[in-house]
Amino acid sequence: MSKLLVRSFAVSIDGFGAGPNQDLENPLGVRGPALMEWFFHTRLWRKMHGHDDGETGVDNAMAQQGFSGIGAWILGRNMFGPIRGPWPDESWKGWWGDEPPYHTPVFVLTHHPRPPLAMAGGTEFRFVTDGIQSALKQAVAAAGGRDIRLGGGVATIRQYLIAGLIDEFHLAIRPVVLGSGEHLFKGIDMHALGYECTKYVAGERATHAFLRKRN
Amino acid sequence: MSKLLVRSFAVSIDGFGAGPNQDLENPLGVRGPALMEWFFHTRLWRKMHGHDDGETGVDNAMAQQGFSGIGAWILGRNMFGPIRGPWPDESWKGWWGDEPPYHTPVFVLTHHPRPPLAMAGGTEFRFVTDGIQSALKQAVAAAGGRDIRLGGGVATIRQYLIAGLIDEFHLAIRPVVLGSGEHLFKGIDMHALGYECTKYVAGERATHAFLRKRN
Repeated sequence: MSKLLVRSFAVSIDGFGAGPNQDLENPLGVRGPALMEWFFHTRLWRKMHGHDDGETGVDNAMAQQGFSGIGAWILGRNMFGPIRGPWPDESWKGWWGDEPPYHTPVFVLTHHPRPPLAMAGGTEFRFVTDGIQSALKQAVAAAGGRDIRLGGGVATIRQYLIAGLIDEFHLAIRPVVLGSGEHLFKGIDMHALGYECTKYVAGERATHAFLRKRN
Repeated sequence: MSKLLVRSFAVSIDGFGAGPNQDLENPLGVRGPALMEWFFHTRLWRKMHGHDDGETGVDNAMAQQGFSGIGAWILGRNMFGPIRGPWPDESWKGWWGDEPPYHTPVFVLTHHPRPPLAMAGGTEFRFVTDGIQSALKQAVAAAGGRDIRLGGGVATIRQYLIAGLIDEFHLAIRPVVLGSGEHLFKGIDMHALGYECTKYVAGERATHAFLRKRN
């Protein structure tokens, strides 16, 4: 059965999953790129950006694992782009250029309907206006038995967490303090929700923590 | 010049520095001992408890470093003991038996005066009723140029943090989720306060993060 997974999601030591003031110039918020520094140096990232170099250590293996066995993605609208409110037109096609790194159906949560958007390499953005449960149901139907990766952002992950729908969590804890921004777990009782940490692995630029629900 | 240091302070992945419902049976709060698991196995801890075994890896080295070069300690009252309100008598002498592990003056923050309490091995508990600044001043005077270690608990560390008085922070990030309890950084902007992470070291049972103020 398909599981809903959060993979390679970076948080700061003080618990922020994005910096403050996200906009077109700062898609991860101010100081947010510091969260992704563990990923930028990996062979996987470099390859995704057309380069034939990059590191092949623990961080790279963790990043690769995050893309393995995934049959569909779910993204919050703010992760798809900086536009708020009704879509002014259909020119915004995500942050990722003509060939996004998903290569599967990607369900984008939004309050504003929009026709599906097929991209090169097998990614198709499908816009879901009737809530997180519906998006998950559609993703499961599309994933063909493979798992669903919940890409973020923080607000979307929090919604799925509180609803008890996330099966596994892989956090990349980065050695930075952000001070402000979007806090991943604030006010959420991860113990009461049933999570425990089952694996903790030191990478080159992050510590990787794997959480799953207790049986 | 003496610096004010937090050393070997354990936090959960979700940011708690103590579990909920601290009392005589649960000095670290419910599930709090899981925070200290990295320390219990070290040679230092075992030696402090009269045993001649224990592990000598990274966690042990980190724990030892926390006791090195310290001329005085500061503790919040709840770290000294479970008694609240005025001291009923002088029978409570801390959690640590006749010979506490401090071997220096220890300034205990309280609203209720009490005479100093000399223990075996050079530890002397001195009770400070006129606030955190006064405790720090007295600790500096007593430390003879060595550093001051702020032992905790969470509420006390938060007071010193907000007042901008902590020079360095060593956190031991444990692979556990507590879900509730005392959150170390909640509502505190560590970036605005000037902290950055300067070192990040994987231990056997915790990841050690060192924060200090940017120059």
